[in-house]
Amino acid sequence: VLSENALVRLFQQRFSGKSAQLKLGIGDDAAVIHPRNADEYWVITTDMLLEDVDFRSGWLSPSELGHKSLAVNLSDVAAMGARPRFYTVSIAIPDRLSKNWVNRFYRGMNIIGDAHGAVLIGGDLSRSPAGLQITICVIGETSGKRVVLRSGGKAGHGVFVTGVLGRSAAGLELLFNGRIHGRTAREREALRAHKMPEPRCDVGLWLAKEGFASSMIDLSDGLSMDLHRLCRASGTGARLQMKSIPVFQAPWISDPPGSALKGGEDFELLFTVPPKRIGPLLRRYPAGFPSLSAIGYLTGNEGITVAQEDGGEKPLLETGFDHFQRA
Amino acid sequence: VLSENALVRLFQQRFSGKSAQLKLGIGDDAAVIHPRNADEYWVITTDMLLEDVDFRSGWLSPSELGHKSLAVNLSDVAAMGARPRFYTVSIAIPDRLSKNWVNRFYRGMNIIGDAHGAVLIGGDLSRSPAGLQITICVIGETSGKRVVLRSGGKAGHGVFVTGVLGRSAAGLELLFNGRIHGRTAREREALRAHKMPEPRCDVGLWLAKEGFASSMIDLSDGLSMDLHRLCRASGTGARLQMKSIPVFQAPWISDPPGSALKGGEDFELLFTVPPKRIGPLLRRYPAGFPSLSAIGYLTGNEGITVAQEDGGEKPLLETGFDHFQRA
Repeated sequence: VLSENALVRLFQQRFSGKSAQLKLGIGDDAAVIHPRNADEYWVITTDMLLEDVDFRSGWLSPSELGHKSLAVNLSDVAAMGARPRFYTVSIAIPDRLSKNWVNRFYRGMNIIGDAHGAVLIGGDLSRSPAGLQITICVIGETSGKRVVLRSGGKAGHGVFVTGVLGRSAAGLELLFNGRIHGRTAREREALRAHKMPEPRCDVGLWLAKEGFASSMIDLSDGLSMDLHRLCRASGTGARLQMKSIPVFQAPWISDPPGSALKGGEDFELLFTVPPKRIGPLLRRYPAGFPSLSAIGYLTGNEGITVAQEDGGEKPLLETGFDHFQRA
Repeated sequence: VLSENALVRLFQQRFSGKSAQLKLGIGDDAAVIHPRNADEYWVITTDMLLEDVDFRSGWLSPSELGHKSLAVNLSDVAAMGARPRFYTVSIAIPDRLSKNWVNRFYRGMNIIGDAHGAVLIGGDLSRSPAGLQITICVIGETSGKRVVLRSGGKAGHGVFVTGVLGRSAAGLELLFNGRIHGRTAREREALRAHKMPEPRCDVGLWLAKEGFASSMIDLSDGLSMDLHRLCRASGTGARLQMKSIPVFQAPWISDPPGSALKGGEDFELLFTVPPKRIGPLLRRYPAGFPSLSAIGYLTGNEGITVAQEDGGEKPLLETGFDHFQRA
């Protein structure tokens, strides 16, 4: 079985190139380029969404799908501490979808693009002999030359996360049970988190600008997967407190802490902060931003553990959503 | 039936955005960005290749497919007069393909990337429930701020094309007839043109640098389609001479002039030159470059005609390869 992490590492080693203008290549949320004499760096990221792998058409309206497709890419730009600027969209469309469907898809994308200052600049269109396929590429701009990588964390730095975790997984659970529209406020919240995630662009840019984040990644594949990625890049381990993790609670979730640790697609930001900067961060974190949780700290030894509420300690296994891992 | 041209126009009108740093959005071979205070412009293009729509796996080795996937994108950068710099690759891989297949695919891409100075900087990977899907995004850099658009042609400008036309279509005809490996030099030439097209990056960059090309496009969908696109963008018509068009000749082609006019995927450059610059172009066109043909001129009235060798004149219909047009 091919694992995405393993393949990414393989290609990193084998095919990554060098260039004077390339500040960072494969392996982070986005690549970083410095155009000659430009005031800012540019970050570039791409994500692909496939029908029946990453989404089901029956679960999302065309405009929700447009929103989500762009959101997952904007989230990668946010995790670099950059501001989204431009995007391209390549889409392979099955015969069953109408021109009206396509129009509504682009409209959904357009609305979230506008909200975050990202402008559609190009793309490709094709008829698909199979399912719907969407590949988006987003280009962002850093604030000055401030960019936040996965690799900047050091032992002792605090680990923070925005929002609540497991909310998107809770929405997905509803969809699997045939509930496409929510009946309660909690259900609607979970479904909305899954269908129309809000990338944390403002937070990421602010953290970079103010110099609070020493490392950052967005939570696309679950805390357990993504914290391992951050720690591997930073050369650290981590110790988390289960009771500090902002777990999404809802009556239909069988294991809320498990969903919070392993559920994918929350698109919250996971970042680290040097000890001296934690006080100022907490004082100055804007009121309008999503909630902020200090969930643990980076350690010098390898491995990630979670201190349980009963006083025990468990290793955090690197499991979560991997497109190449199948049951 | 959805037509790609019509859809592109629709999205252009409806969803294209504006930005101070965006010099050119949807509608050309690539978008053009000016990073703040940068010495050069950046061009961005993306193309998608789908199994059984754009290629058949049995006809191409993994490294040929890697080559071709990147080549079609490099060609768009060439058509802007820019130098390719960076690329991202998103690939959805069916279960039947091995890690070794993936490795050879990336290797083929890497070789042509290196040859043109383009460096892999990121991408996405997924398991595909259906066929193989490849989406590449290439970022290029102009020489100074010189960029060549489709829209710069004016009545009276000469129309030029590099190389020979219909060669890739001739290769495709062989493949349709079950000939995957050529038996004669001519067959091998046609197959190679189809499987491993050579983007004209050096020519495009040189034409832009020296200021010869007033407008330019790469021939991806056939002369008949692509000249109409250039003329529409420039607000002109054109008059071609059939006898000046560099037609690829081979015994197995039923209608060589037809293939030259309508055959897609030659990835030659089609460009226009102001009358005063034609002499200097012909004198200074480097000997190592592909052959150059003056095939006609732009006209003030709409429509494109082709003067036949028998003295007659025929309209050039806008027909060719369109992913949305099906028999």
